[in-house]
Amino acid sequence: MQQRSEETRANILDAAVRQFALSGYAAASVDQICSDAGVSKGAFYHHFPSKQALFLALLEGWLKTIDKGLESMRQPTVPQTFVQMTGLLPAVFAAADSQLPVMLEFWLQASRDETVWESAISPYRHYHQVFTKLVEDGIAEGSLKPVDAKAAARVLVSMVIGLIFQGVFDPQSADWPEVAETSMKMLMNGMAKKPA
Amino acid sequence: MQQRSEETRANILDAAVRQFALSGYAAASVDQICSDAGVSKGAFYHHFPSKQALFLALLEGWLKTIDKGLESMRQPTVPQTFVQMTGLLPAVFAAADSQLPVMLEFWLQASRDETVWESAISPYRHYHQVFTKLVEDGIAEGSLKPVDAKAAARVLVSMVIGLIFQGVFDPQSADWPEVAETSMKMLMNGMAKKPA
Repeated sequence: MQQRSEETRANILDAAVRQFALSGYAAASVDQICSDAGVSKGAFYHHFPSKQALFLALLEGWLKTIDKGLESMRQPTVPQTFVQMTGLLPAVFAAADSQLPVMLEFWLQASRDETVWESAISPYRHYHQVFTKLVEDGIAEGSLKPVDAKAAARVLVSMVIGLIFQGVFDPQSADWPEVAETSMKMLMNGMAKKPA
Repeated sequence: MQQRSEETRANILDAAVRQFALSGYAAASVDQICSDAGVSKGAFYHHFPSKQALFLALLEGWLKTIDKGLESMRQPTVPQTFVQMTGLLPAVFAAADSQLPVMLEFWLQASRDETVWESAISPYRHYHQVFTKLVEDGIAEGSLKPVDAKAAARVLVSMVIGLIFQGVFDPQSADWPEVAETSMKMLMNGMAKKPA
């Protein structure tokens, strides 16, 4: 039963990705998603109280994938780890590109709803914490100068958001994965005791 | 005549800002905007062929204001100029905040229309050029290390986009104008021959 329930949940999430990409977030209906997933509405609402809850579950799933990717990137030093992490960006660009209209619709809804808003911004706060911890590790291991870790993490998060934004909105005007690596090296050279 | 025509244009633009903020981009009608501005539809279409053209004119106006602000920021050295420029961000945060839902709707439309897309991304290309030129000036005057100016400008544009994004989406979690100044100093310390 447990396994079948998890399969049903996964089928609904897969169908949602397809339907959102096809019709957009506002226009996609729970009926369509159920029909595509081959599940009853009862089964749907057992897993997700609303279309919004479904979207937040999708978002959470994407972030977990990125977190796992980040964890597998640890290198001998923190500056090397940060540079290595930019290797994840091509996958993020590709995923964000196919989901861009849906993300924009979601943010639009979020800008009108306090609760959705909290969920929409939580990833940025999460990555700020992850990066702060990593900068602190770098200072402790002696690879980074004794910078203000929280402030440095804000610079890093800002740069990554800006890179993703440009890579998705304006893919043609630069080789963004390369730009990301160069940018990170430049930033690390300013923060590291020795060049990364 | 010339003066009256410019007044009419300005009235339409002011009314558009109000109507977009009130109803959103998709729901705001040319009728409403004309009525608010006190102009005929004939006068409207004389100035703007479409609601889209009107929005692009608004966007262009905002960018011109920022450009003028940037020009007035020149300091004795380029690193000081970049740090000074972060002083413009509080005004950008405030303007972006009130126009955020409209901007999101515009990007959503842009993501489905090639021509709008080109207009939507042109500001980022423009600021990349402005920042590249400024970094080149800094290298020429000897205040910046001989970095790759285009790459350095991409880091700067990315960081600024990321800061605006976070300052608008998550105003509560940090003192963003201060974060912006600290971030810029940190970046400049990595690029400057002497700390900014």
